[in-house]
Amino acid sequence: MAIQHPYLLFLGDAPDQLAAKTAQGIAHWRPEWCVGQLRLDGCKANLGLTDMTLEEGRAAGAKTLVIGVANRGGVFSEAWISLLERALLLGYDLAAGLHNRLIDVPVLKAAAAQHGRQLFDVRHPAREFDVATGRKRPGKRLLAVGTDCSVGKMYTALAMEKEMKARGMKVDFRATGQTGILIAGQGVSIDAVVADFISGAVEYLSPANDADHWDIIEGQGSLFHASFAGVSLGLLHGAQADALLLCHEPTRAHMRGLPDYKLPALEACMEANLAAARLTNSAARFVGIAVNTSQMDKAEVEGYLRGLEDDFGLPAVDPFASGVAPLVDRLGQP
Amino acid sequence: MAIQHPYLLFLGDAPDQLAAKTAQGIAHWRPEWCVGQLRLDGCKANLGLTDMTLEEGRAAGAKTLVIGVANRGGVFSEAWISLLERALLLGYDLAAGLHNRLIDVPVLKAAAAQHGRQLFDVRHPAREFDVATGRKRPGKRLLAVGTDCSVGKMYTALAMEKEMKARGMKVDFRATGQTGILIAGQGVSIDAVVADFISGAVEYLSPANDADHWDIIEGQGSLFHASFAGVSLGLLHGAQADALLLCHEPTRAHMRGLPDYKLPALEACMEANLAAARLTNSAARFVGIAVNTSQMDKAEVEGYLRGLEDDFGLPAVDPFASGVAPLVDRLGQP
Repeated sequence: MAIQHPYLLFLGDAPDQLAAKTAQGIAHWRPEWCVGQLRLDGCKANLGLTDMTLEEGRAAGAKTLVIGVANRGGVFSEAWISLLERALLLGYDLAAGLHNRLIDVPVLKAAAAQHGRQLFDVRHPAREFDVATGRKRPGKRLLAVGTDCSVGKMYTALAMEKEMKARGMKVDFRATGQTGILIAGQGVSIDAVVADFISGAVEYLSPANDADHWDIIEGQGSLFHASFAGVSLGLLHGAQADALLLCHEPTRAHMRGLPDYKLPALEACMEANLAAARLTNSAARFVGIAVNTSQMDKAEVEGYLRGLEDDFGLPAVDPFASGVAPLVDRLGQP
Repeated sequence: MAIQHPYLLFLGDAPDQLAAKTAQGIAHWRPEWCVGQLRLDGCKANLGLTDMTLEEGRAAGAKTLVIGVANRGGVFSEAWISLLERALLLGYDLAAGLHNRLIDVPVLKAAAAQHGRQLFDVRHPAREFDVATGRKRPGKRLLAVGTDCSVGKMYTALAMEKEMKARGMKVDFRATGQTGILIAGQGVSIDAVVADFISGAVEYLSPANDADHWDIIEGQGSLFHASFAGVSLGLLHGAQADALLLCHEPTRAHMRGLPDYKLPALEACMEANLAAARLTNSAARFVGIAVNTSQMDKAEVEGYLRGLEDDFGLPAVDPFASGVAPLVDRLGQP
């Protein structure tokens, strides 16, 4: 069941811009879905959208109030709850990607039931999944994999979808994390699925499709991340990827959250992903490398990317800086 | 929190011996914990233990009634529920490894609360886990890995524990599946953990220990099983295994439940497990191969095992047929 748009983006009392990064991602990738922003007193984030009250948002057509900000200390304050309850009364659905659930707040659960509204806790799967079958299904699939967590897999996947849509290709972004789900309006928070069903959930997320249709599947974690590699492998197997993109951030000193673990060499990372991918799709191949160069010395970026292209015989780009056109070009080449 | 023993094993109305295989595993590996069996009219399973009523079991010292049989159609019948309720009244805790939970049966939940008894639904984790840290912890660890599901990983691990105990070594079996948990009295049903916490749950299950202590960790699934490999990889990383045992069933035509997937070559399976294991323990190595030869032509077994030893330079045994002494010998060798 998809989250209804347009959205009004709730920024709450965000202490800084970073706290509203979920809302920022939504406004960046789905500007046409966002009628405005709602900020409480003291909010330090600003997406540059029109500030609106709940009533103004409804008048502008908003169907869902999206909580695009972290709640301080992981608790819902009284101010939030009374506003969210009023939103339900006014006809909004609510969507949030927080650790704690809207549905667990009794007054919100009651108000949603009373007014016939939906609560979307997108970090928590709303259904059960079957065990993966491993059976080949029609349609093409691309998976963004990473040397580490938080290296730009979601951004790269969304940039691919946008470029492919602009070229008139049949394509859908398939979200596997909470921000991606709010951007896509649907998806599965794959790291919250029960372990037995990781691959099965991906088979559900990316079902059979037209032979010339591409699913661009958001990756999670890394096969080389000692905390999360199980999720990454289950995702890789369930995706049955035809095409893989390697995402990388070259300045990182160690794996995210693991000071004792160095990043893998790109070649080892590609080999391990390819070997695992081929269990469920013998034709899997890499089609490019997406590098987050934001922390690099600007003078070194071009040489670094050209070096990767020489080393691996694949296009290497920074999706944020210059787009993903060379990666999409590569999809059509043997 | 451990399940209290001695046990009285409840076989219910098992339609055949196979339906009571959980109870059979417990009686085989923990005979000293099992005071008797309780069978309903029409039960076709028999463990060769003394048949007892609930009252006789209590008189013999039993503290927990263990449901060692599948419930028909996945439902708790009226006959079961009234017996289980009476067990709680008589002072038993209840333990079960079924898909549906004892705690979800209102009359059992109420009776347990009223009489101060515990309900152990061992297929369902009773706690939350942290994300894995990947930090090295003291103590030695062995993990049984497999070419496929259901190739003897639990049996092999328990045989290792038994042989090592007999030699006076410090050792604990660490259970990761429901039957193993009932045999050990504790453990984590690892495939039921939320995906993000697979490796973290294994770090919890196998904590820091004496430098000369071995945890023998029960494996699950296979890196080459398209449905469950994510669980297997998370388990491998969390185990930080010093020693790996490969478990195999040579007559299987395809991966369990996946008619289109062949079993991996042993060499490829060992290489993939070793490469992944070395992410969290660079000293990981294989110490042997455990083969379930029960479906093989008896005349071929000896030649097959000697062939494996020649090919891999490792001891190869059928733990059921001839024990695991050569595998334990190997632990002490460089």
